[in-house]
Amino acid sequence: MKKRYQRKEKSIEELMDGILSGDRVTLAQAITLVESNSIRHFEKAQALIQAILPYRKKTIRIGITGVPGAGKSTFIDTFGTYLTEQNLKVAVLAVDPSSKVSKGSILGDKTRMERLSRNQNAFIRPSPSGGTLGGVSRKTRETLLLCEAAGYDVILVETVGVGQGEFVVRSMVDFFLLIVLTGAGDELQTMKKGIMELPDLVVVNKADGDNISKAEKAKNEFNTILHFLKSYTEGWETKAVTASALKETGISDIWKIIQQFQETTEKTGVFEKRRKEQQLEWMHEMIKEQLERMFYEHPEIKEILPIYEQEVISGQKTVASTVLQLVNRFSNR
Amino acid sequence: MKKRYQRKEKSIEELMDGILSGDRVTLAQAITLVESNSIRHFEKAQALIQAILPYRKKTIRIGITGVPGAGKSTFIDTFGTYLTEQNLKVAVLAVDPSSKVSKGSILGDKTRMERLSRNQNAFIRPSPSGGTLGGVSRKTRETLLLCEAAGYDVILVETVGVGQGEFVVRSMVDFFLLIVLTGAGDELQTMKKGIMELPDLVVVNKADGDNISKAEKAKNEFNTILHFLKSYTEGWETKAVTASALKETGISDIWKIIQQFQETTEKTGVFEKRRKEQQLEWMHEMIKEQLERMFYEHPEIKEILPIYEQEVISGQKTVASTVLQLVNRFSNR
Repeated sequence: MKKRYQRKEKSIEELMDGILSGDRVTLAQAITLVESNSIRHFEKAQALIQAILPYRKKTIRIGITGVPGAGKSTFIDTFGTYLTEQNLKVAVLAVDPSSKVSKGSILGDKTRMERLSRNQNAFIRPSPSGGTLGGVSRKTRETLLLCEAAGYDVILVETVGVGQGEFVVRSMVDFFLLIVLTGAGDELQTMKKGIMELPDLVVVNKADGDNISKAEKAKNEFNTILHFLKSYTEGWETKAVTASALKETGISDIWKIIQQFQETTEKTGVFEKRRKEQQLEWMHEMIKEQLERMFYEHPEIKEILPIYEQEVISGQKTVASTVLQLVNRFSNR
Repeated sequence: MKKRYQRKEKSIEELMDGILSGDRVTLAQAITLVESNSIRHFEKAQALIQAILPYRKKTIRIGITGVPGAGKSTFIDTFGTYLTEQNLKVAVLAVDPSSKVSKGSILGDKTRMERLSRNQNAFIRPSPSGGTLGGVSRKTRETLLLCEAAGYDVILVETVGVGQGEFVVRSMVDFFLLIVLTGAGDELQTMKKGIMELPDLVVVNKADGDNISKAEKAKNEFNTILHFLKSYTEGWETKAVTASALKETGISDIWKIIQQFQETTEKTGVFEKRRKEQQLEWMHEMIKEQLERMFYEHPEIKEILPIYEQEVISGQKTVASTVLQLVNRFSNR
C-alpha cells in the first residue's frame, strides 16, 4: 500500500513545475499538501513553498467580509467574473473560523459561485477545515503564496463576519472590503466590535430595484460613521459606495477604487511596508501560538491549571504568585 | 546596615493591621512594596495581598480616560470631591504606558488634583514608573486590592488615551468613562482605533460658558456614533452626556448613571461575572507574557532571531519552518 501511494505522489519538482506552468490540478494537489496535518507533508510543503517563493507574480490581495446574508458569494461571483473579463486570473480562498464547529465550511463553496466556478481563469478553494484559527491562517497564507506562483493576479480571501476571521484576513491582505446591507445601525449592532475600523472600502450591496434609495441612505450613514473613525490604511480614506452584485452595477467602480488604492500605496511605500510587516507579524504570532500550545498541552500544567484557576477566583491565591508557580513548573520540565 | 533596615521595615502583620485600620502611611508603604522590582519584596507583597484579600470592601472600580487636554485631572478633582461629600472614600490610581519613555508619569499627580489631594477621605497614587505594560498593570491591580482592603469605596483608575492604556484599564474596572471635548469628529481622528467601543459612558467635558451649545452638539454626534456601535457591557446602553468639571455641573448625574449601572449589572449578574472573568484573563495574560519573556530573553534566541527575520522577509525561508526551528531551539535548551 505504502509503495503504491509513494509512486502516485508527486515530487517537489513535479509539483513546482505544475504550479509554475499554471496547471490547476497540480495546484490543488499542492494545496492539499499544505493543508495536511502530517509531519512528513508539512516538511514537504515547506520545501515546496520555499522553492516557489521567488517565482510569485505581482498581485493584489483583497479580503472580503460581511455578515451572513450580505451577499458575499454573489458579489465574489460577479466581481471575480468581471476581473476575468479584464484578462486577469482570479483565485478565491476562504478563512472560516467557524468551520471547526459546523464541520465543513460554506465559504468558497463552488456551487455558490456558479459562473466563476466554470471560468478557466478562476480558481476557487474552500476554507481548510479543522484545526486552530492559527492553523487555518497558516494554511490560507501558504495557499495564497502557491496561487501567486501559479500566475493568479488577484487573490480574493473571503471570511464571515463572526469570530476572529476578519482580523486574521485583514492581516494577510493588501485591501479589505466590507460588504453590508441597508440599515447600517441595526446591522452594525450585530457585527463584531472593531469591524468598522478594518475596511479600506465599504460596499452597500443589493442596491437594486426598490432598494436603491434605502441603499443610498445606508451609504450616507456609513460614510458618517467612517468620517468619525480613523482609517486603517495610512494615506487612504475609507469610504462607502453602493453596488448590486445581482444587477452587476457599481462593480467596475469598485475595481477602479482598488486600483487607485494600489497606485497610491505603492507610491508612498505603504503597500510594500505592509507586506513586510505582515510577514513578521505572522512569524511572531506563530511563535506565541507555539509557546502557548507547548504550555497548555503540557501534561502537568493541564492537570494543575483548573485547580489554580479556582484558587485564584476564590481569592485563596494571588494571580502573580500563581502564574510564577505555573511558569516555573513548565520551564523546569 | 541590613539589621537596621530590617528593624525599620514593617512585617506583613504590621502592614496588614495598618491597612485594615485605614492608615494612609501604611497603605502607601504597602504599595511601594507592591511596586518594588526586587524578588524578596515581590514575595512579601504577594503574601500581604493574599492576607488582605478576604477583608476587601465592596467597591465600584471606575476607569477614566481621555485625550490629553480633555480635562481628566480637573474632572477627577471635582468628581472625587463630590464623592467624598456623599460620605464615600475615594482612591485615585493611574496607568500610564508612556511613563517609561517620559520618565515619570503626569497621571495621578497630586498637584493637578488640588482639592482632592488635601481631602482626608481621598488617596491619590501616581502611576508606577518603568517596566513593561504588563508589569504596570500588575502593580496597579494589586494596588487596587490594597485600597479596597483599606476601606475605599470608589476606585478611580486614570489613563491617557494613548498606547494600550485604555485596554489595560478597561480590563480591570467595572465601569469605564471616556472624557471628550467638543468637535467629536476631529477628536476621534486623533484617538486610538477601537476606543469608542470601550466606554460605558462618554462625558463631553467643558460644557460651560460659550461652549455649552458646542458641547450639546458634540454630545449628539457622539450619541449618533454610539448608536451604531455595540455596547461594551451586556444589557447596558452606552450614552454621551455633557458636564463641566470646572463649573461642577452634570457631576451628580454622572454618579447617578454609575449607580444605576451597578444596580442593573448586579441584578443580571454581569457585574460579578465580569470581575471573575477579569481575574482569569489577567492570569492568562500574565502566563503569555511570562512565556514570551522567557522566549525573547533566551540568549540563543536573541542571537539568531534577527537573522531568521531577515531570511523570512527576503523569502529565503518560510514562516512556518522558521518558527518551528526557533521554538525547537528554545524548548531544547
